[in-house]
Amino acid sequence: MIERPILGISMGDPFGNGPEITVKALNSRAVYERCKPLIVGDRAAMEYALAVSAKVNGIHLKLHVVASPEEGLYEYGTIDLIDLGYLKDSDIPNTLAKDKPEPFRLGPTKLGGEASFQYVVKVIELAMANKVDATVTNAFSKEAINMAGHHYSGHTEVYADYTHTKRYAMMLAHEDLRVVHVSTHVSLRQACDRVKKARVLDCIHMANDAMKAIGIANPKIGVAGLNPHCGENGMFGTEEVEEIQPAIDAALAEGINIPEKKPTPPDTVFSKALGGWYDIVVVMYHDQGHIPLKVKGFVYNKAEQHWDAVAGINATLGLPIVRVSVDHGTGYGHAGDGHANELSLINAMELAILYGKNRR
Amino acid sequence: MIERPILGISMGDPFGNGPEITVKALNSRAVYERCKPLIVGDRAAMEYALAVSAKVNGIHLKLHVVASPEEGLYEYGTIDLIDLGYLKDSDIPNTLAKDKPEPFRLGPTKLGGEASFQYVVKVIELAMANKVDATVTNAFSKEAINMAGHHYSGHTEVYADYTHTKRYAMMLAHEDLRVVHVSTHVSLRQACDRVKKARVLDCIHMANDAMKAIGIANPKIGVAGLNPHCGENGMFGTEEVEEIQPAIDAALAEGINIPEKKPTPPDTVFSKALGGWYDIVVVMYHDQGHIPLKVKGFVYNKAEQHWDAVAGINATLGLPIVRVSVDHGTGYGHAGDGHANELSLINAMELAILYGKNRR
Repeated sequence: MIERPILGISMGDPFGNGPEITVKALNSRAVYERCKPLIVGDRAAMEYALAVSAKVNGIHLKLHVVASPEEGLYEYGTIDLIDLGYLKDSDIPNTLAKDKPEPFRLGPTKLGGEASFQYVVKVIELAMANKVDATVTNAFSKEAINMAGHHYSGHTEVYADYTHTKRYAMMLAHEDLRVVHVSTHVSLRQACDRVKKARVLDCIHMANDAMKAIGIANPKIGVAGLNPHCGENGMFGTEEVEEIQPAIDAALAEGINIPEKKPTPPDTVFSKALGGWYDIVVVMYHDQGHIPLKVKGFVYNKAEQHWDAVAGINATLGLPIVRVSVDHGTGYGHAGDGHANELSLINAMELAILYGKNRR
Repeated sequence: MIERPILGISMGDPFGNGPEITVKALNSRAVYERCKPLIVGDRAAMEYALAVSAKVNGIHLKLHVVASPEEGLYEYGTIDLIDLGYLKDSDIPNTLAKDKPEPFRLGPTKLGGEASFQYVVKVIELAMANKVDATVTNAFSKEAINMAGHHYSGHTEVYADYTHTKRYAMMLAHEDLRVVHVSTHVSLRQACDRVKKARVLDCIHMANDAMKAIGIANPKIGVAGLNPHCGENGMFGTEEVEEIQPAIDAALAEGINIPEKKPTPPDTVFSKALGGWYDIVVVMYHDQGHIPLKVKGFVYNKAEQHWDAVAGINATLGLPIVRVSVDHGTGYGHAGDGHANELSLINAMELAILYGKNRR
């Protein structure tokens, strides 16, 4: 077991919320006791985030630019940074002179897209070379990276490509509720077509492996149905009978622990998961997993009209390296004024630490 | 406005949890200050439930059998009952002599199905004749009513048939989270086919009317998309562009308040609803609405291994009468021992009171 795993953390879009939530998340002695965080990003953006955090949040940390993970200090008070040098100070809309620093409000840009894409490529390289134990990604913008000529639909596809991975799946987690998706960004009709025995079994395997990788010896796995009430024995929908049950049977034959031995109705599987019946649930489509996670993790404060908690995390399973991500976007409309919420990044780092510690 | 509306409450399957949760729900002075509850059921079952409740829960109420709503006392301490006389005392497995009364464990029966079906028919008749102001249903078993020759898939279909209603929709609610379903018990593939402009607009109308009927002057309505991220402008799924947006545009033209003026991504619409952005959300399929509701309303107690709260309610919109229901089944495995949770029935009665009070 690794005592303090090194986390390679991509800074995210420099004009998004990544720099400021990174500063806030690293303003914690406890974090440095549990891991060695290394940011891959840009000096100019991090310095501005530090200045905003000092002014708005009373956070006083220093920057320490390094060329490689070995040079990191990994001490509370100092943020270790690999500076890829895409930005000049003048690229950042500076409102520090005002009473209240203002959001950047630049939206997606070619510069932000190029820079944020290259941070990710760099953390992947470091992880593939075993120089960091796990990677954590802040948000970039799909639109911005595409403006910069990098045609990917998200981090997951970048990671799959750069690690030469064909079989992977998106996991979302919030506290003890974890879900792995059979499909993600396809229409709901196509999602129905993707519910095939082989893919469901792959996802059960990846879910089982992921839980073992964070230290759960005999993971309990729930498998959701596709149709309401699991189709009531084929009355409305046959995927449970024809595809999901055969995948479950194959997994059970391998000794994988699926306590119910059959698909669970989609509308009760998450209450059960929250009640401790499973460590992780295999879900059949994007919103089947995203709805319960966001209902638990995204909390809007009615009285004060802002999001109190944006707490979910997102991990890619099936990769040769660990990748955990925040579960929110760049927040272009608000980023830069020191008010972004760091909870999702903290949670992502916690999971990356668990993975990193348990690496063989 | 009606001060204390009369609620016609069907007792539910006599061998299910209906009788005992009815006794528990009516053990409240506050309930009698706000409404006049009238049970339609069977004397034998209610007397046994009263005896179990006295022994297990220390609840001491009397039964008052009436022939019609006018005869009700509607006073705390007395349960007014229209006795349809389907059961003899000897039909009930009596374990009162034991230290701890035991569950009935009869499962679905022809007798229970026939009786519970007729209770529902009677409350519908009373409501159609304006003798009760709203109806509330306890759980019956689809299997049991079918054993008795009544071929319906649930309460909703019985109500639609007996009130001659063609256009209706299922609403679920838990506290301030309310959803109305474009479709319910069909396969997910068929649910995609059911997302048509006319039906979505119907559901928006029914949602709007239902919120006005409980006293909200200018209801805010959210409309979920069908596909992940609402299909990102047709990239994965076209129903948002072709069916849902036209329905929203038609509703906006009528002056209906849909604050976002477009479909909301299915994975964020419920966090927003919980944050007060909408009074009700129109959802495109069964689990899209059921998952968030049950994640909020069904709470499993990990330590003590039982369900703490089964708090949701279910209402049928579009009917000429009010119908609100508990959002759980008969609980055959546990019913009869005095431990069933009455929270969902209490919540159902609360909503029925709101409706009943605001009847014109």
